[in-house]
Parts: sequence; C-alpha cells; structure tokens
Amino acid sequence: MTGAPSTEDDGRDWVARDAAVLWHGFTQMSTYPANRPVIVDHAEGRELVDVDGRRYLDAISSLWVTTLGHRVPELDAALRRQLDLVAHSTLLGNGNRVVVELAEALAAVVPVASPHVLFASDGASAVEQALKIAFQYWVNRGVEGRTRYLALGHAYHGDSVGSLSLGDGGFGTDLFDALRFPVVRTPGYDDPGWADKAVAAVERHAGELATVVIEPLVQGAAGMLVTDPPEVARLADAARRSDILLIADEVATGFGRTGRLFASEWSGIRPDLLCLGKGLTGGYLPMSATVATGHVYDAFLGEDLGPRTFYHGHSFAGNALAAAVALEHLRLFARDDVLGNVAARAAQLETLLARTVAPLATVGAVRQRGLMVGVELAPPRPGLRWGRRVCAGAVSRGVLLRPLGDVVVLMPPLTITADEIDRIVSALTDALAEVAAEDTGLGRRT
Amino acid sequence: MTGAPSTEDDGRDWVARDAAVLWHGFTQMSTYPANRPVIVDHAEGRELVDVDGRRYLDAISSLWVTTLGHRVPELDAALRRQLDLVAHSTLLGNGNRVVVELAEALAAVVPVASPHVLFASDGASAVEQALKIAFQYWVNRGVEGRTRYLALGHAYHGDSVGSLSLGDGGFGTDLFDALRFPVVRTPGYDDPGWADKAVAAVERHAGELATVVIEPLVQGAAGMLVTDPPEVARLADAARRSDILLIADEVATGFGRTGRLFASEWSGIRPDLLCLGKGLTGGYLPMSATVATGHVYDAFLGEDLGPRTFYHGHSFAGNALAAAVALEHLRLFARDDVLGNVAARAAQLETLLARTVAPLATVGAVRQRGLMVGVELAPPRPGLRWGRRVCAGAVSRGVLLRPLGDVVVLMPPLTITADEIDRIVSALTDALAEVAAEDTGLGRRT
Repeated sequence: MTGAPSTEDDGRDWVARDAAVLWHGFTQMSTYPANRPVIVDHAEGRELVDVDGRRYLDAISSLWVTTLGHRVPELDAALRRQLDLVAHSTLLGNGNRVVVELAEALAAVVPVASPHVLFASDGASAVEQALKIAFQYWVNRGVEGRTRYLALGHAYHGDSVGSLSLGDGGFGTDLFDALRFPVVRTPGYDDPGWADKAVAAVERHAGELATVVIEPLVQGAAGMLVTDPPEVARLADAARRSDILLIADEVATGFGRTGRLFASEWSGIRPDLLCLGKGLTGGYLPMSATVATGHVYDAFLGEDLGPRTFYHGHSFAGNALAAAVALEHLRLFARDDVLGNVAARAAQLETLLARTVAPLATVGAVRQRGLMVGVELAPPRPGLRWGRRVCAGAVSRGVLLRPLGDVVVLMPPLTITADEIDRIVSALTDALAEVAAEDTGLGRRT
Repeated sequence: MTGAPSTEDDGRDWVARDAAVLWHGFTQMSTYPANRPVIVDHAEGRELVDVDGRRYLDAISSLWVTTLGHRVPELDAALRRQLDLVAHSTLLGNGNRVVVELAEALAAVVPVASPHVLFASDGASAVEQALKIAFQYWVNRGVEGRTRYLALGHAYHGDSVGSLSLGDGGFGTDLFDALRFPVVRTPGYDDPGWADKAVAAVERHAGELATVVIEPLVQGAAGMLVTDPPEVARLADAARRSDILLIADEVATGFGRTGRLFASEWSGIRPDLLCLGKGLTGGYLPMSATVATGHVYDAFLGEDLGPRTFYHGHSFAGNALAAAVALEHLRLFARDDVLGNVAARAAQLETLLARTVAPLATVGAVRQRGLMVGVELAPPRPGLRWGRRVCAGAVSRGVLLRPLGDVVVLMPPLTITADEIDRIVSALTDALAEVAAEDTGLGRRT
C-alpha cells in the first residue's frame, strides 16, 4: 500500500475543495464532508473511479440517468462526430439537422399520436413546458375555466415552481407553499384505491381541469411507489372521456427503465403530453423534451407572431451535441436489445431480493418495476438515518447507492450484468446487517 | 449552378421534415416554414453553414450564448479529454473532480463574496434556484413575513412558472397569470426614474421583501432596455440597507457580453445570488448556475437530512462534459483578452450605428451596452412585422439575425472581427432599406 496515505490525503483534499465552493442539490452541506462523498475522477463501463482510484459500481445510474453505462464507445464517437460539425445552434425560429433527425427518431417510438417535440435541458423544464401547454391549449381553443390540474399524492415532478406545484411537497418543500399554485390532489400509489379516487375526482372536476398529471407505473422520488398498468389505464380513460388532457411525466421511467421503452406502454395509454429527460441522452448530457400530440400542437397554430404561439423557450433547447448522443442512444437501444437485458436482470433481481432481502427483519418492503427498485428499510426507531448509513455501507463495499429517506434505491444501468446484480444485492445485504448490528443486534435473517 | 436545384430541394425537404416533428420555442409553427428558417448543418468559426451549404454570420450568437465562436479548437479538445474520463456523474451527495475545478475557477471571478455554486442546466432553472433560496433563507433564519419579491417592469427571467412570475409577462404570457405568484413590480429601464421608484418601493415594502431581482445594466429580452451603472448601484444599496437579498440575473449579461466579465461589475455591486447561463460554456452545452454568497449559504447549514437543507436539484446539475468546456472557456477568456476585443468592437459598432443606422427614418432608437445591441425600428404603422422582415432580409444577405418584436437584436460572438462588424451593419442597413422601400418608399437616409 505504498503511497496510499498520500492518495488518501488527496481524496480528503478534494472533498474539502469541493465543499469550499460547491453547493450540492438535495444535500446538507454541513455534513457533506463527513458523509464521505465519492469525488469521481473518471469511469470505466458501469464503474466510477474516484480521485483516489477506488472503484464503485454505479448502482444509481448517476442519478437515474445512465442507461448503457459510462464511456460507451458508440456514444463517445457520436459526440466526437457532432463536435466536428457544430456544438450548438439555436432552435428559436431556426433548425439544426441532427435535431431534426433526433425528433424523427423519437417520433417513431414515443407512445404519442402525431408527436411534436419541444426540447429543453432540465427535466423540470419539460414538465413546466407541458403544464403551460396544457393551460394555454384551453385558452387557444376559447374554452373558459379549464385552469386546474389534477395531480397525485406523493407526486414529484421537479423543483421549479411550476413542477413543484404539481408535486406533493415531499422533502419538506411545503415551505414553498406560498409560491405554488394549488392543484386538485388525489391519493398516490400507496393507496390501493388511488385510481378509483382519481377517476371520481376527474368526473367531479371535469369542467375545470386542464389536465391530469401522472408518473406512469412508478412514483420514483416518493420512494418507488408502484401501481399496476390497468389502474393507470383507468385514469387515462377517465381523462379522455371528460376531454381532459393527460400529461405523462416519464422523466424517470422513460427509456427502458421499467422494462418497456416507456412505462406508458404497459398501460397502453397515449398521453397528450409526454415529458422526457434523464435517459434521453443515455445519461451523457442534459436534455429533456416535451412531446405533444397533434391535436394539442394544432391548437397553437395561428397567425405569425400571434397570440396562439407558445412563447416559451430555452437557449440550449435542442443542443446539437446532446441531440447527436440521444440519436445514437436510440439506435444502440434497439441494436443491443437493451430491453431484453432489462427483463432478464429485473427478473434476477426480483428473485434475489425476494429470497435474501425482503425476509430480513430490517426490511419493510421491496417495490420494483423493471430496474427501478425501492427497498424500504424498517429501522427499529426513527432518527437512526438507516437509509443514509446503509448506503454508506454499500459505498464502502464498492457499490454506489443513494437513498430516499429510509428507502434504498437500486437503479443500475440497463446493461447491468448478472454478476453485477449479485454484487449489488450482496453489498446491500452486508451493509444492512452491519448497520442493524450497530443499532440493535438485528440484521440476521428472520 | 449545376446541382443547385437538388440542394435547394434538399433544403426545403429539411424544413418540411423539421416542421413535421419539431415544435420550436417562441415560434409560430404554422408560419415557420414560410419564414425560411436556417437549418444548420455545421459551423466554421463564427459562421453557420446550412444544409444547402449557404453560410451565415452568426450575429445572434445562437441565441446569445456563443462567446468565442463555434468549433473553438481548445473547447473541442477540452470536451474530448473529458469524454475520455466520464461524461456525467451525479452531484447529489457526491462530487466530480472537473466540477470542483470549475467551481473554483468561477469562485475566483464572480462578483459574489464567499461564493458557493449550485449548478443546473437551463437558465430559468438557475433563476428558480435563486428565488427559492432567497425564500427559504428567511424561513431558515426564523424571520417571518419575508415572502415577497420585488421585480422590475419589462423584466424577463425565463419561462418556468417561478421565473415567469418574476418576469413582467412579456410576449403575451400574462395568459398564465393564474399560475404566477404575485410580486411587487416597479418600472423598468425605459422609465428614467426607475431606480428612484424601485428604491422607494424597497423602503416601503422592506419588512415583507425576501429579495430584489434585477438584470444588471440591460433588460435583454425586453428589447435591450439599458440603464446606467450608478442607477443599479443605488437599488443594490437600498436593498442592502433594508437587509433584503439581491438577486442579479446575469444569464444574458454574464461572460463578457457588456464589456466586463459580469455586468454587475460596472455598478460595483455584490449580489447575494447571481444567476449564470448562456455563455458559461461558451455556448457549447447547456449549463447554468446559481452562485450564493457565504451568509446565504450558511443559513442552510444544519443537521444531516434536516429541514434547513435546500431540497432542490437537477439530475444533470454539474454535468462533467459541460464543466470541462466551461473551465476551458474561462481559461481562454483570460488568455485571449476577450474583453479587450469586446471593448474595441463595441466602440466600432457604436460609432457605425450612430453614423449609419440611428439617423435613418426607419429607426427609432439604438440601445447598446458592450456587444448587446437593440435597434428599435420605427415602422410607419403597426402590423408590418418589420422586425421579422428586416431580419429575414439580413439572413438572405448571409447574416443571421432574430428580432424581439420590432427590435432587431445584434449580439455577435465576443471574438467578432472589425470586418464582420461592418458586414453585420451593412446587411442590416440594406435589409432596412429594402423593407422600407417595399412598404413606404422610406429607407433612404434622412
């Protein structure tokens, strides 16, 4: 281990340098250094390598975005080729060839009829676009009073004020209530009767609702709350019957995460507005998109510079470098049968978790759809920070995890191997046992 | 011209393909094809080349983002180097070496005391972060009632619901009023007494204001409304005296655009929260940032997972590829004395516009700060779409312009040459004459 102390010092130095100038999102900065963050230097495949050379299997897909792994040769090559053309040109009133090609490729696969794609960069921006389009849609059609939103309990749609308004104030963000517009709220996926209640609310509020907003199949940030496809379909049908637009926020569930290219497909729904992000570029670059169906798009057609126009746009919308990567990503997705691997590895993971993790006294529930998994811990008393500590235990074993409260999220790249699935579950199990032993002597199998 | 017809057909084909699947921001799609959009294939230096091989000097910097031009060898090289390390790893609870290096480089140059940098991707997201931080700052300090915002008339801060709330509803976006939170609004830079009125409002509302939000020196999207540095300083002083936070939205003015690295420097102000975007990556990749001063940052320190934490974050915040480009961009900015060129070219442009454009009967006013210019046209009657038509005339002469209503925006890359400045003004003058002749026989010099 010659030289190890100096690299260790180097790693601590990087944490200190980081904490001196950065502010990390969703992170308490006073305890950030003590929580031993991983300072990434580079990556190889599905592993991240930190500034000290330590390796971590990226079991959170660098926050739910990496699909095929890091440093994918074909994605790298696509980016290099585009760099020899142009990095960015504006989409406001003008176009770019590679962005047209990407929009065509997306149009061919999204579960949206006659789709038109409006790009942005942050996922929250895609949601903002969708909620504003849904609002203006009724104004443009001359229909009055269709100004409200129906959104679900535990919903998370992003952190900007509009997306936060649709969300249910998790993470203590109800402190921003004075800034949020009110919505019609019905229960989330943890209520077995959520769909009945949402359908009833749709019928009750039909004349005033602009749109219904859902995260199809999985409420991710809520701790991977899951529902079944027919329930989602029932709500979509109710919205359609009442002529209410449907927004499907697939920022987290899109691009294969649940085992189909889009989670909407499980329910056979065709949203009027589809929000995409995260996996759109394979996790390489910021890019998000709002995909609008033809009859919504058509409501915005009118005279040049006229009031029916959607006066909304981001400077980097349709960035050419991101578009080139996203286009190649779609090609690889089909070529490599990524969904086939998701099915196989999701089944393996489900079996493994059912056998070795779910029975533990330290575990309350395991929720899974495809390669989106929440392992809800059952700490013996509140305040033990089990989510944090169990993930830290996994990190020390070379598997990068990050919790949502006391829910451990498993969100591996879609190209994960069978051995790597074993490695993730093993690290989780060992970390769980270690933390339980520290607190209670629990952690052995029941 | 052998082969020209087929490439022409190809160009029209690309426009049709584009319009079939894309939805462009701030663009009436029914007239998009007829407005002859430029479909960019690649770029060379400061010129964009369309799918038919036609060349356009990018005089809008691909919407106000390109600083050094396109295909800058050093920026390309930095991106390629980072691609060999890692494209992206999450900043939620973890770090990345190149992002630390970028934050350090930014901290050394921003006009913010003890800065901490919170990254996002869309400029609007940087504003959303700032407005939420300012709001939570008072909650965390236990001060009640500091919940309101003071923002200026004609303000534009982005299109998400929070940033749109701070903005003054330009572009007909008051149709979204039901979604926007109310703010204390005082006049914009077109009112010579704007600063007096803002200062008075600050004093009148001191106990209820969380923050004052400004675009230092130039209200860009409003049509390049300008003010003088001492006026901005007076408002900043008033906010400081009343212990109200100051947010400087420099998404448009930052990175040399006004002739200093940040427009705040002209006024000597030190904002508590600084919003950056556009030029941050030299216009290559989506990246934005909110820079918070130390005493704001400190108010968020507390117990791990506790309520003082800022529970806000975007998946691609601190994207490594964007960070690598932004870091190299800052290095080039200093190495190449870009600000020296901005000063020289801005002076040349000012002289040229004063001599050849401002005296025209077709021009109402010329407003300029550095290389941000608005030429306000004076059409003989409303409804002539002069802004649109004059810019189309410039485009047909190989200079890409895009108006804000009847204000023609000149926003060339900061590395623009003297010859290129001449070329821009010449194209503008000729286009103006052409459009005026079509409508009125005006357009000759008065």
